[in-house]
Amino acid sequence: MFITFEGIDGSGKSTQARLLAEALGAAGHSVVRTREPGGSPGAEEIRALVLQGDPERWSAETEILLFTAARRDHLERTITPALAAGNVVVCDRFADSTRMYQGLSRGDLRAQVDALHRLMIGREPDLTFLIDIDPAVGLSRAKGRQGHEERFEDMGLGMQTQMRAGFLALAKEFAPRFRVIDGARPAEVVAAEVRALATAALEARGQ
Amino acid sequence: MFITFEGIDGSGKSTQARLLAEALGAAGHSVVRTREPGGSPGAEEIRALVLQGDPERWSAETEILLFTAARRDHLERTITPALAAGNVVVCDRFADSTRMYQGLSRGDLRAQVDALHRLMIGREPDLTFLIDIDPAVGLSRAKGRQGHEERFEDMGLGMQTQMRAGFLALAKEFAPRFRVIDGARPAEVVAAEVRALATAALEARGQ
Repeated sequence: MFITFEGIDGSGKSTQARLLAEALGAAGHSVVRTREPGGSPGAEEIRALVLQGDPERWSAETEILLFTAARRDHLERTITPALAAGNVVVCDRFADSTRMYQGLSRGDLRAQVDALHRLMIGREPDLTFLIDIDPAVGLSRAKGRQGHEERFEDMGLGMQTQMRAGFLALAKEFAPRFRVIDGARPAEVVAAEVRALATAALEARGQ
Repeated sequence: MFITFEGIDGSGKSTQARLLAEALGAAGHSVVRTREPGGSPGAEEIRALVLQGDPERWSAETEILLFTAARRDHLERTITPALAAGNVVVCDRFADSTRMYQGLSRGDLRAQVDALHRLMIGREPDLTFLIDIDPAVGLSRAKGRQGHEERFEDMGLGMQTQMRAGFLALAKEFAPRFRVIDGARPAEVVAAEVRALATAALEARGQ
């Protein structure tokens, strides 16, 4: 089973991905935890190329191509082999992040993102947790851990608000695989709800 | 006018691209000479990522995505602005190289290459010189200047023969813009023919 976490910066999705991977491991599942962009040696190199340096160095179209190249490598080298070997794959961000970020930066890009996904990726997660949080809270959390890869984060409250709306729209568009989780609660409360939903989904598949 | 040079390794296409750019410059044209993969700062970084390291590090599909990302950047940052400013652009390799190499490595990839080109590139050259040469001659020339980016070259005579056939097939498929040039003759004889054909094409466009 292929499980992804999505959410705005500071939503706690990376923490929740880690906690779910640990809980499933403790429950006896073989788990591979990974992230995007990156998640395989080649994809991590592409990640560095995209996220470091001048924010204007790539056009939105070139960026989509680079993210799709990284995703293809990640899928081939990490996700697909791990699923084939019977692992649960827990991934921090996947194609929904590209749909949301690029569609937001320029609305007309969504069609290109979708066409590239159909052509070169094809695969969707089985289950996606959207960790939903008030944009002001997310922004203050994200600013507390500012690093050198923060190109998409230092964009202010207006942008965070649009990102949240973008993710919620994707949760409606792909409703069968999305679970929208209230991320304002303490991390252990959020983790318990995520664990219960993931366990139910695994049991429904006989895993 | 956008002019490209194609040909197997050791065909002399890079020399011919340089000689044509010099001749057009001497005749009073503004010329921008460039190359693929690469041709803009971002695309050169992608080139290094693709061509260096273990030949197995990228799948054919990831490689196509990376080359398309590099081409998009090259087009946006170098070729399109140069053409808009009235320059003649002379480029060593372009999309035909991707069609030939990737189609050769796995025949089923040509459809993906074409779909990606339509979606993210769109642009074809106005004039393409295929410098055609006996594969054995090309191979011995290429081996004389072996460097660290020779992933596609150290593949033997059988591969060079297939590459030549692949380029000749593209010259038929895109016949209106292709000129097939006999590259076995001395470089200055080849250059004179290329220059005459390019000058005629420029004059036909009123340039």
